[in-house]
Amino acid sequence: MPESIHLDLTYLPQTLATRVATLRSLGAGIVTQMKQDQHPGGHWTGWFDFPRRQGHELVGQIRSYQDRIKFEYDLVVVVGIGGSYLGTRAVADALGEPIENALLPNRLGGKNKRLPIVYLGQHLSESSTAETLEIIQHRKPLVNVISKSGTTTEPSVAFRIIREALEKRFGTHEANQRIIATTDPKAGALLELAKAHQYKTFVVPEDMGGRYSVLSAVGLLPLALAQYDIDRLMQGASTLFEEVIQHPGEHPATGYAAARSALYESGKKIEILSFNQPKLHFLGEWWKQLFGESEGKDHKGLFPASLTFTTDLHSLGQYAQQGERHLIETFLNFRTDSSTQSLRVPASDQSQDGLAYLQGTAIEVINDAAMQATLLAHSDGGVDCMSLNLGLLDAFNLGYLLAFFETSCALSGTMIGVNPFDQPGVEDYKRNLFALLGKPGYEELHDQLRPRQSARDPNKR
Amino acid sequence: MPESIHLDLTYLPQTLATRVATLRSLGAGIVTQMKQDQHPGGHWTGWFDFPRRQGHELVGQIRSYQDRIKFEYDLVVVVGIGGSYLGTRAVADALGEPIENALLPNRLGGKNKRLPIVYLGQHLSESSTAETLEIIQHRKPLVNVISKSGTTTEPSVAFRIIREALEKRFGTHEANQRIIATTDPKAGALLELAKAHQYKTFVVPEDMGGRYSVLSAVGLLPLALAQYDIDRLMQGASTLFEEVIQHPGEHPATGYAAARSALYESGKKIEILSFNQPKLHFLGEWWKQLFGESEGKDHKGLFPASLTFTTDLHSLGQYAQQGERHLIETFLNFRTDSSTQSLRVPASDQSQDGLAYLQGTAIEVINDAAMQATLLAHSDGGVDCMSLNLGLLDAFNLGYLLAFFETSCALSGTMIGVNPFDQPGVEDYKRNLFALLGKPGYEELHDQLRPRQSARDPNKR
Repeated sequence: MPESIHLDLTYLPQTLATRVATLRSLGAGIVTQMKQDQHPGGHWTGWFDFPRRQGHELVGQIRSYQDRIKFEYDLVVVVGIGGSYLGTRAVADALGEPIENALLPNRLGGKNKRLPIVYLGQHLSESSTAETLEIIQHRKPLVNVISKSGTTTEPSVAFRIIREALEKRFGTHEANQRIIATTDPKAGALLELAKAHQYKTFVVPEDMGGRYSVLSAVGLLPLALAQYDIDRLMQGASTLFEEVIQHPGEHPATGYAAARSALYESGKKIEILSFNQPKLHFLGEWWKQLFGESEGKDHKGLFPASLTFTTDLHSLGQYAQQGERHLIETFLNFRTDSSTQSLRVPASDQSQDGLAYLQGTAIEVINDAAMQATLLAHSDGGVDCMSLNLGLLDAFNLGYLLAFFETSCALSGTMIGVNPFDQPGVEDYKRNLFALLGKPGYEELHDQLRPRQSARDPNKR
Repeated sequence: MPESIHLDLTYLPQTLATRVATLRSLGAGIVTQMKQDQHPGGHWTGWFDFPRRQGHELVGQIRSYQDRIKFEYDLVVVVGIGGSYLGTRAVADALGEPIENALLPNRLGGKNKRLPIVYLGQHLSESSTAETLEIIQHRKPLVNVISKSGTTTEPSVAFRIIREALEKRFGTHEANQRIIATTDPKAGALLELAKAHQYKTFVVPEDMGGRYSVLSAVGLLPLALAQYDIDRLMQGASTLFEEVIQHPGEHPATGYAAARSALYESGKKIEILSFNQPKLHFLGEWWKQLFGESEGKDHKGLFPASLTFTTDLHSLGQYAQQGERHLIETFLNFRTDSSTQSLRVPASDQSQDGLAYLQGTAIEVINDAAMQATLLAHSDGGVDCMSLNLGLLDAFNLGYLLAFFETSCALSGTMIGVNPFDQPGVEDYKRNLFALLGKPGYEELHDQLRPRQSARDPNKR
């Protein structure tokens, strides 16, 4: 099987092998269910094999729209929360550069002609919103608002604010052109708004939850608008799905799901995803949503955390090495391209710093050695460790990895006995919020909650 | 007791009350030990009451150095890892603005005349290092390298790189002026290097570990250089220590330590620190190091995680609401200054988005209501919740909070029976790293580790 990923399970206890094998067989059956759209979790498997089924058509639609854009833009603004922005940000950060670099003087377009992306509507912070608006004010923005319903509080509030700002600055006609709505194809507040203002629209597919939607228009459109290579991203994802369909029981995606489920059954409580590039931070955030929201229900599920090495070895390294032994750790390694490494440990006339033996060594060589050193140390310390090893960090391998994790997550959630596609718990705080804010229809809950609020409400001091 | 913080424990199970009271008494005794420098963990309590004991003198030294700076600078570069940068970044981000805003055209100095700070030496990533070097290249930097020993790999490598760049750009004489070393006062590689190059030096106190050092020169110097109000920061911290010494058993710092320890004893495994401002992200990272490194040993300790609301309610909210019930959650609330709120939900001709009832409402009002709504929802879902409520997010209250957490952490670690001041596990991966990289002296370990490396070493593919 010519897979693009290598899963190393050799550091796990031998005693788990039988259970992992059993779960692999179970996983093969779940793959078949998903392929036939017969997963017991319902018709939410539209993401599975999506690139091959609908990818070409979608990429064509995006390209055709891009070719017809008449206005100039040098900044993409994504308005969305949760799955509506995390996948985009995971890919953009991993393959692009930080916003502060993209905005440096004389750097219009950033490296490889990619445009910077900024994000609104994932919080309700006044200062953070104002700071993002200030950046937008300095550039010529294109705004992609992404919401299935159009009624989620954070992006709806942010969209009102940015819409008002665009209309003031560009006039209604041009503002309407600079806004693209990605939303439900049939109904909903954002669709109605888009019709009224003649915004260009793209579709949030009806058969995939937000956390599984990065390879639909939800992620592909903003990435394409910012000049990322969505073709290669889709090819990578397509390759993963093809491999899994061909070899459902043997594939590493099934193996990873089986191993983490077996470890969960054995009593482990937390999974750490570790990587050694700061630019993978949001891939970690995306992974945390994917697994946390899919498995964290019915009082079950590994708690997902992510660590950036070597940074976090100097903060959470002590805990990982010697704290409570309820941890499993998955090391995510991309291959380093040794031909392009230019940053090496400089020579020095003083060698008190103990680095003489490293002079001339590429810092990425040290960085990769630290991953190996840590896996062995944590494994010796009683953490159950696995590693996922991929090729270069490029669009193909990233697309492959996104599809890998989506597939593993669906299998893993099913293996531990939850529905990996719903999120029944996310409404609880929203109901409370509506009640506390006095939304019509929530009067009864309002009266119940008021006396339960903290005696020292920070707003009342 | 006129404390600046309110700890709300009313959402915790009544059954814990007796144990919390017992632990409070225990805590009072530990405070006395620390005050008398007789903590069983050794002479590592120099941070306790430091602002009153040595703070004025240190602030005077910093001011006096600042007044004598002869060169122009518009960027502060902090070279350090773990406790050598996390506290600085926690304060700078919380009270300042993001680097991308500080670097916008015509924004030299940022709001309130603060200078942007960038960070090097907390990772070994080539691309991230190159990106930070590019920002430095666009500005006039002042570099503060912070390391007790001067031999920690990451900052030592980064310091060689930035030193070479500065010497090339400014010449050796000016480069030496633009570098300040914060290090051990008596010995070590960085001290020797500083002497050889006549760098200005400040002291990493011998009696406090890195994670407790933010209010020493480690944090105060770079913050002062970037024009943050370190006087108010120190006043806040000083106030906390004074209160705790006056009322050791009753103080919320003792109460927080007692409550989280009692919850840990009751079987909880993870503590989440939740807040609702993205700019508190690094305060969360600082808190994670403080508690994780202090308590995560002897196979003990709550695993520390942090969530930024409302962002993470749309990713880990489902897990928090309905996942494994091993969670406790501490809500950190700063009071919102209603007089300065200017960002409100705009009116709209279309109201399909369901926001009509919020038109004209300040978004921070919604943001604060979401904290209350979530506390009640998670509490109802079986998470043991507490809240910490402070005044405005300013230098005084932040200094107070840093000292609060340091004190609570020392008490809490002692209560669960570990030494909160050591970190015996952080050397394990470093030894492996030296061995894998072929450092002289590690030949035997090298030979042991080589055959244990992953069969699919990503560097060997």
